[in-house]
Amino acid sequence: MGCVTATTRVRLSPEERRSQLLDLGVRLLATRSLDELSIDVLAEEAGISRGLLYHYFGNKHVFHEAVVRRAADDLIAQTAPPASGEPLERLLTSVTAYVDYVVTNYEGYLSLVKGAAGGNDTLREIYDEARSALTDRVFREDAQGTIITDTPAARLVVRGWAAMTEELVITWRADPSGVSREELLEIIAASLPALVGVIPG
Amino acid sequence: MGCVTATTRVRLSPEERRSQLLDLGVRLLATRSLDELSIDVLAEEAGISRGLLYHYFGNKHVFHEAVVRRAADDLIAQTAPPASGEPLERLLTSVTAYVDYVVTNYEGYLSLVKGAAGGNDTLREIYDEARSALTDRVFREDAQGTIITDTPAARLVVRGWAAMTEELVITWRADPSGVSREELLEIIAASLPALVGVIPG
Repeated sequence: MGCVTATTRVRLSPEERRSQLLDLGVRLLATRSLDELSIDVLAEEAGISRGLLYHYFGNKHVFHEAVVRRAADDLIAQTAPPASGEPLERLLTSVTAYVDYVVTNYEGYLSLVKGAAGGNDTLREIYDEARSALTDRVFREDAQGTIITDTPAARLVVRGWAAMTEELVITWRADPSGVSREELLEIIAASLPALVGVIPG
Repeated sequence: MGCVTATTRVRLSPEERRSQLLDLGVRLLATRSLDELSIDVLAEEAGISRGLLYHYFGNKHVFHEAVVRRAADDLIAQTAPPASGEPLERLLTSVTAYVDYVVTNYEGYLSLVKGAAGGNDTLREIYDEARSALTDRVFREDAQGTIITDTPAARLVVRGWAAMTEELVITWRADPSGVSREELLEIIAASLPALVGVIPG
C-alpha cells in the first residue's frame, strides 16, 4: 500500500498521477504532521524521484497546500450524510463519520487546525471551507427546520457546536480514558438538539 | 492614559515599573495583534527609551510572552465568580465577564489563540493554563455538583463548552449582525446546563 508501481505509473495521465500522489500524501498525514511530510518522504513512499515530484508540485509549499485541500475534500466527502432518512439520523451518520475521520487522520487534522489558526492564509481558507461545508450542511439537510430553524442565532450556535465537536474529538483522541467512543458520539450527537433548545426567541 | 510619566516613574521599583509596562502592553493589545506590538510601539506609548525596555524585557520574544502571561492572568482575575450566590448564578457572572473581556481585548485575545494554536509552545502553555483555570472553575465553584458532577465525560464536555464559548464570542465580535449581546450571553449561559443533560450515565 502507498506505492506507485512502475506498472500502474505508465498507464496514468499526469492528472491521475498527481491525484494518486495527493492520496498518498493524505495517507501519510494520518501519522505525520504537515512539517514532517516532506517531498523526500513522499518520493520515498511513492518510489519515484524527487525531481518528478517537483515537476508535479513545484515546491513544498504548493505540495502541502494541495495535500491539505485534498484532505479537506476527503473529509467533506466522507462525512456526507446518507440521501434518505430522518434529518437527525442523517446528521448522526455524518457526525460519526467526522469523528472517525479525525481519529484516523489525527496528525494531519491537527496540522490543518494549527496551520489555519497559526496564520497561514491558504490553510485558513481551506479550513474555513471545510468547516462551512460541515456547518452549512446542518441547515441544508434540515431544510424543513425539523431540528433547527435558519436564523443568525442558529448559524452562530451551529458554528459553536462545530468548534465544540472538534475540541471534543481532539481532546478525546489525545486521552480517551474514562469515555468510550460510543459515549463520545452520544455526547456530540445529542448536543446539537440540546443547544438548539437554548436559542433565544 | 497609557503613558508612564516621569513623575510616577522615579517613585516605582523596577518590579513595579515592569508591571506597569506590562499593563500598558496588555492595553495596547486590545487593538493590536501581538505581531504589531513592538518594543518601539511600547517605548513610544510609555514615553521611555527602547534601551530601557530592552533592559526590562531582554528581547521582543520575552516581552511578548510576559505581556501575554499578564493578559491571561488579567482574564482569569476578571472572570473570577463572586464569592457567594447560587453556583449557576456565579458562573453566569463569570461567563459575562469572559465575553466582555474578549470583546474588549479582541485583537490581543485573537493573538493568544493564534499563537497557541500555531505552535508557539510558551503561548500554548499560557493559553492552556488560562483555559484550565476557566474550566476547572466550573467544578470548583460547583463542588456539590449542583450543575454538574465531576466525571471524565463531564470534564470533556466542559472543555467542549469552553471551546464553543470562545468560538461564539470571537465569531459574534467579528460579525454581531442579528444577535444582541444579551442573546449571546443567554446562549452561552444556558448551553452549559443544556450540555450537562447530554452526558451519558
